[in-house]
Amino acid sequence: MKRRSFFKLGSLAALGSTILNPIESFASANETTINATNKKAKNIIFMVSDGMSTGTLNLANIYSNRILGKSSNWLQLYLDNKVSRGLMDMASASSIVTDSAAASSSWGGGFRINNGSLNVSPSGEEHLPIWQKFKLKGKKAGCVTTVPVTHATPAGFTVSLKSRNDQSVISEEYLRIGYDVLMGGGQQYFAAEHRKDKKDMYVAFEKQNYVVAKSKSDLKNTDKSKKLLGVFDFDALPYQIDRKQSTELTNTIPTLAEMTEIAINQMKDHKEGFVLQVESGKVDWAAHANDISALIHEQLQFDDAIAVAMKFAEQDGNTLVVITTDHGNANPGLIYGKFANDHFDSLSKYNHTNEYILNNIKNNQSESQIKEFIKSTINVELDDEDAKTIASYYNGLKKGDDGLYNYKHLPFKAFAEIQKKHNSVGWISMDHSADYVEVAMFGPGNHLHKPFMKNTDMHYLLLEAAEVENKF
Amino acid sequence: MKRRSFFKLGSLAALGSTILNPIESFASANETTINATNKKAKNIIFMVSDGMSTGTLNLANIYSNRILGKSSNWLQLYLDNKVSRGLMDMASASSIVTDSAAASSSWGGGFRINNGSLNVSPSGEEHLPIWQKFKLKGKKAGCVTTVPVTHATPAGFTVSLKSRNDQSVISEEYLRIGYDVLMGGGQQYFAAEHRKDKKDMYVAFEKQNYVVAKSKSDLKNTDKSKKLLGVFDFDALPYQIDRKQSTELTNTIPTLAEMTEIAINQMKDHKEGFVLQVESGKVDWAAHANDISALIHEQLQFDDAIAVAMKFAEQDGNTLVVITTDHGNANPGLIYGKFANDHFDSLSKYNHTNEYILNNIKNNQSESQIKEFIKSTINVELDDEDAKTIASYYNGLKKGDDGLYNYKHLPFKAFAEIQKKHNSVGWISMDHSADYVEVAMFGPGNHLHKPFMKNTDMHYLLLEAAEVENKF
Repeated sequence: MKRRSFFKLGSLAALGSTILNPIESFASANETTINATNKKAKNIIFMVSDGMSTGTLNLANIYSNRILGKSSNWLQLYLDNKVSRGLMDMASASSIVTDSAAASSSWGGGFRINNGSLNVSPSGEEHLPIWQKFKLKGKKAGCVTTVPVTHATPAGFTVSLKSRNDQSVISEEYLRIGYDVLMGGGQQYFAAEHRKDKKDMYVAFEKQNYVVAKSKSDLKNTDKSKKLLGVFDFDALPYQIDRKQSTELTNTIPTLAEMTEIAINQMKDHKEGFVLQVESGKVDWAAHANDISALIHEQLQFDDAIAVAMKFAEQDGNTLVVITTDHGNANPGLIYGKFANDHFDSLSKYNHTNEYILNNIKNNQSESQIKEFIKSTINVELDDEDAKTIASYYNGLKKGDDGLYNYKHLPFKAFAEIQKKHNSVGWISMDHSADYVEVAMFGPGNHLHKPFMKNTDMHYLLLEAAEVENKF
Repeated sequence: MKRRSFFKLGSLAALGSTILNPIESFASANETTINATNKKAKNIIFMVSDGMSTGTLNLANIYSNRILGKSSNWLQLYLDNKVSRGLMDMASASSIVTDSAAASSSWGGGFRINNGSLNVSPSGEEHLPIWQKFKLKGKKAGCVTTVPVTHATPAGFTVSLKSRNDQSVISEEYLRIGYDVLMGGGQQYFAAEHRKDKKDMYVAFEKQNYVVAKSKSDLKNTDKSKKLLGVFDFDALPYQIDRKQSTELTNTIPTLAEMTEIAINQMKDHKEGFVLQVESGKVDWAAHANDISALIHEQLQFDDAIAVAMKFAEQDGNTLVVITTDHGNANPGLIYGKFANDHFDSLSKYNHTNEYILNNIKNNQSESQIKEFIKSTINVELDDEDAKTIASYYNGLKKGDDGLYNYKHLPFKAFAEIQKKHNSVGWISMDHSADYVEVAMFGPGNHLHKPFMKNTDMHYLLLEAAEVENKF
């Protein structure tokens, strides 16, 4: 099959410059040859640590080395020279700084669209998402994530919809298209009692030959002849460090690595192969909350899933693994100073997220009770002034933050600024950044990987790696 | 020559684990083969954008694309697939977050040492700096920079000294060792009237067969049979955007690209080859000042020097070019929001640095005069409250920042926070960060480049690339 023919799209959109760029870049891409195999990718595992700034990758690796005594799996792939790597420009059609919907759609649909949309162009044209393309060619397709499975990043590979916010519609689209594995959070978009239209999506999925899992134990009942829907929490799954402190959560909610393993097992024997997106969505949420400990542990949760994917891919030999993120968020960094090392190492004593802590401070608590509680959860001793600052958000004197995932208006920013004095970690904001992002690739197809690519190039790279002609 | 033999050091220090690591890593390094040539590097040009966070590289490239209509030279090398690239861990012996002295010494001496020192170990052992090693093997060696030529980054390749602060001693060491090209700022460390010991270092250099240049016009008198010392300002050279606004500065002070070209011409015909360090030192100073416009333009000044180095290296065919930074600083990022694009583009109207602006506000100026002045320099209209905030630093109500390069205590931080509302750029602090840094390599020797390396590996890589045995 001639490689150029992959780019003959079925629509007039093919004439746009967004499409012409990939052709040009792929023409010389074969010169990049770290561990290139040049054979066809039967399977693709696409891994997204959502909202991972460069500092997030670095700090998780430093934590892994200093506290856990081993390199992170991601950086170990570099040390072992097993992957190609490059940078990627994630800008959307509407902004230099993308949101997760436009970011996932750039990969998923092959076009830059406006922030907030899912594979729908500014003029209303719908782009066929890449997991649908692969399904049409006979592959199985799935997504696993630590946030609602109907969230922007999985949705960008699977559906076309004007607004990312219509998550109840997204769950119906998933059923209509018939994805093979879907796991994450988001009961509110599936359960009759939480949906506005009172539709019971669980029953609807079961009728269409799905095993429906609502708890980790239900995953013992998976059946390869059926499809799999797993929805394990009302909204996102709990943060990894909070989960670890609770036997109940540990018993009922699977980790990202566990979901990744089950998803692979569920689809790996399919003759035509499979495609799987794996998202560590709460890396982004932790960055929005400026919570360094939650951030590092969600990144390490992602890192554990990398190990699962790589183990399969190395044994299989026919699987392309892409490891990346969709945008920076808050650009965390460890700051120079006499106590930088001790401050960083103190993070090993953080046993709960800031979300847990700020949710568990009560309106009638005294400043000394607040001090004691914070000391007991993250081993930080607040001074009087800082205790007063925190208390002021609970006695009505101050209003907490607004923010995407902070409907309770918890004072994340003030708390992060207090913690900075103890852990030397700084943030540029509580939102996404324009940073170019890191991309690593392993296995067949990574000979197409260039050192610097546009997000939309990824769409065509995945199709070409799998030798799927772009005609639909 | 057997590659492993490069690592037989002449001292007991060779038994340390710092030395053993490179052996291990180079053993598999030949598998990395982007444009690898596998031939000997006769010349090395080592380029450092000091204190360049990932965001600095990104934002300069976005500025270049959006405002100047072309990719930066650095990112163009990635687009053209001309270089290898990797990440590098720059930690020092004393901290996860390095200073420039320990950073340059890790490359220059092959050992991690404490922050603040130049190639002297915590126990007092002196390491022979790499530019001396190359001189001992017959090569010419030089450094050009936009900060004092006696500053930490050039000094880390050239001298061993307990403290980076002894810049008057460093100028004497340069003369004693006899480096072939030295250009930058730092008259205070050379001129008799400014030195404590009243030594006239210019006369001393002239006596040792140096042409001494004190202004750009003096560079017309360079003579390849002589060495070259160029010292063009009292301390650091002016920021590029301030320089561009002044005919006097443009006429008397060379750019980094101009110094790079002159340095290459001065040494390129030497039979045994040459080694040259090129540092854009004020990228770091602009980050310390949280001045986004100064930062981008210093990064672009570095980028212009990349073009000069690459032009020579591509024609020459025997030159290894390393392009990197020594640490992150302040982790700037463009923040998500409705006005992100317009805010970013407004930076094209910034015609002076924050240093120039804050130095030129007078103690008796009214708030409306301050508003007018800021509008005239960067096209930003301050509201009343922000004008009052700035004024408060000039009427004695508030004290400005402390900071490494801010002896006048200008209120850089407050001004950056005001600018953030207009340009959407955020900062984590006013100091270095622990971020892993970007490394690109072109030409003979880049087959040794691994995707993730330790800073000290660089020392041995440079020696091996040039096939210089590490016996001294």
